[in-house]
Amino acid sequence: VIDNVCFAVCDPGSEVLIPAPYYPAFDNDLRVKSSVVPVPVHHGSASGLRKAFHSSAGGPGPGKREALESVLPSNEDLDRAFANCSNPRILLLTNPHNPLGVVLPSDEVKRCIKWALQKGLHVISDEIYANSVHGGDDADGGGEIGQGFRSAIAMMPELSRLLGSDLIEERLHTIFGFSKDLCASGLRVGCLHSKNTRLLTAIDNIGYFCGVSGHTGYLMAQTLQDASFVKKFLAKNQANLRKSYQTLTKHLREAEIDYLPADAGMFCWIDMQRYLKDKTFAGEMELWTGLARDAKVLFTPGRDCHAREPGFFRICFAWMPEEALKLAVDRVKHYIDKL
Amino acid sequence: VIDNVCFAVCDPGSEVLIPAPYYPAFDNDLRVKSSVVPVPVHHGSASGLRKAFHSSAGGPGPGKREALESVLPSNEDLDRAFANCSNPRILLLTNPHNPLGVVLPSDEVKRCIKWALQKGLHVISDEIYANSVHGGDDADGGGEIGQGFRSAIAMMPELSRLLGSDLIEERLHTIFGFSKDLCASGLRVGCLHSKNTRLLTAIDNIGYFCGVSGHTGYLMAQTLQDASFVKKFLAKNQANLRKSYQTLTKHLREAEIDYLPADAGMFCWIDMQRYLKDKTFAGEMELWTGLARDAKVLFTPGRDCHAREPGFFRICFAWMPEEALKLAVDRVKHYIDKL
Repeated sequence: VIDNVCFAVCDPGSEVLIPAPYYPAFDNDLRVKSSVVPVPVHHGSASGLRKAFHSSAGGPGPGKREALESVLPSNEDLDRAFANCSNPRILLLTNPHNPLGVVLPSDEVKRCIKWALQKGLHVISDEIYANSVHGGDDADGGGEIGQGFRSAIAMMPELSRLLGSDLIEERLHTIFGFSKDLCASGLRVGCLHSKNTRLLTAIDNIGYFCGVSGHTGYLMAQTLQDASFVKKFLAKNQANLRKSYQTLTKHLREAEIDYLPADAGMFCWIDMQRYLKDKTFAGEMELWTGLARDAKVLFTPGRDCHAREPGFFRICFAWMPEEALKLAVDRVKHYIDKL
Repeated sequence: VIDNVCFAVCDPGSEVLIPAPYYPAFDNDLRVKSSVVPVPVHHGSASGLRKAFHSSAGGPGPGKREALESVLPSNEDLDRAFANCSNPRILLLTNPHNPLGVVLPSDEVKRCIKWALQKGLHVISDEIYANSVHGGDDADGGGEIGQGFRSAIAMMPELSRLLGSDLIEERLHTIFGFSKDLCASGLRVGCLHSKNTRLLTAIDNIGYFCGVSGHTGYLMAQTLQDASFVKKFLAKNQANLRKSYQTLTKHLREAEIDYLPADAGMFCWIDMQRYLKDKTFAGEMELWTGLARDAKVLFTPGRDCHAREPGFFRICFAWMPEEALKLAVDRVKHYIDKL
């Protein structure tokens, strides 16, 4: 879906601004077919977010909300990236965030949308984890399951009052899918919400090249019509995510590994900077290789997510049984203790 | 699948040579996403094929096989088209043929493949109607159901002996699907057969953007494993096609409408030249509009198929009940009698 919207909105070589760190596969997804260039936009200062980490030294950070204001780049950061582009067309937001696993504060999302629309960009709000908000861990001041997230679709009325409905309807597009929230990645069904009739006409045509089979569409329609099943399934999935997350973070705390408290998705972002032999991305790759080869634990390196600094890793915890999470953290602990 | 192979093999603006007339949707399929330019290649003389028509004046033509040698362009025709291209990359063959509804003679197919490979082109053999050979009508010397067709895949050994296996394995690609032969167009499953490992690696990546859902893949696998069901289904489908085709042509003969005897697919190509007010494509459009508006019968105009001369139309007959085929021909007859 992202590829199709980029194809419809961009020329080859156009830039898509993406707040970093971001989902590593965006690089391939944007470049391969539509020849669009992803541009990571970093927050000017890394220190804000750092305070939010659950640190082995000082316990949980200063409260998620404040800290999360350091996830998205400031308008100045965005301005700087924009100025370096030759043909910027899109701001791509991911909320809940991947790889950080957090729900973004609505005011911050609105600020970024407003910035982008005023610069003449389109905004894609990728909300594929919208229904995977697990609320986090009570030990880190976790919230209630499913709370806190607001879709860009729900923001459209207030953004329209602010910027005019024509602009909002032409430029703000929301995408989601069933692969995460309904654990249905094998079905390959994504959705686009947009009120831009020219975009929808284009998608009508290019969508032909990646049509969902009628058989799968029927299955999805039948499933979604059973509202009580969907509600129960999402609640169960969220509770399972929370449980896995809590198990993981309990072991991380015991192992004195710093992590950013998460409340959505299937990821946890950990800080391993102090275990780098040298503070470079080469050093990060060395640690990553060691963890994979010797500890037999596979993380996503921060560099692949366009992290600003070396030493961070994304843990995918969703499909692991409790014992495996404990074993994985034990192995990591064992490995870093020997460094 | 065609789009993906073109994307992998071509640059934007590259040309794909296609013997004309051809399937009208190729124009959109090639241009929209991969920005590849379809180039119709006509047979130098229209008279050869004309002799094969079942004519109201002289009965059936002189024997399908000879006449069908006038379907594909000669090497000289291909040379001429090739010389006018700036970056020709692919020769796209459709066998069985759409819109003509005929199985192409294997020797002619081999000649064209040989021509293309010696020019440094890739060849795509589109065989989506491979199992929809209905054999035609006894009144026109029709053959046996399912007979006569040979896949380019089956030609690979002899072509390899002729041109070397490296060239064949690098350049000859066959595509097919389940939408026609298994009446499963809603499933949106296509296949590529190629021995070119670089192409297959590229398709591995770009195929991600149009993946078949696991659920649909499972259904297809289950279906195809039941060989006796597939065999029965194809035989029944072929018999139904033949019956519809025979009903249609019986009424066409009664109405004295000339047609090209067909033996495959779901099409019949008719000659309405003598009903054109003027022998131009504008005249063809006028007749087409009249037939659609007044006779309520919808044909595909020859111009959309890049026919060489105006006045030909493609009839899709496959999904029509017998009474509807009679009614349609009656309406056409009624309309042209008043011209």
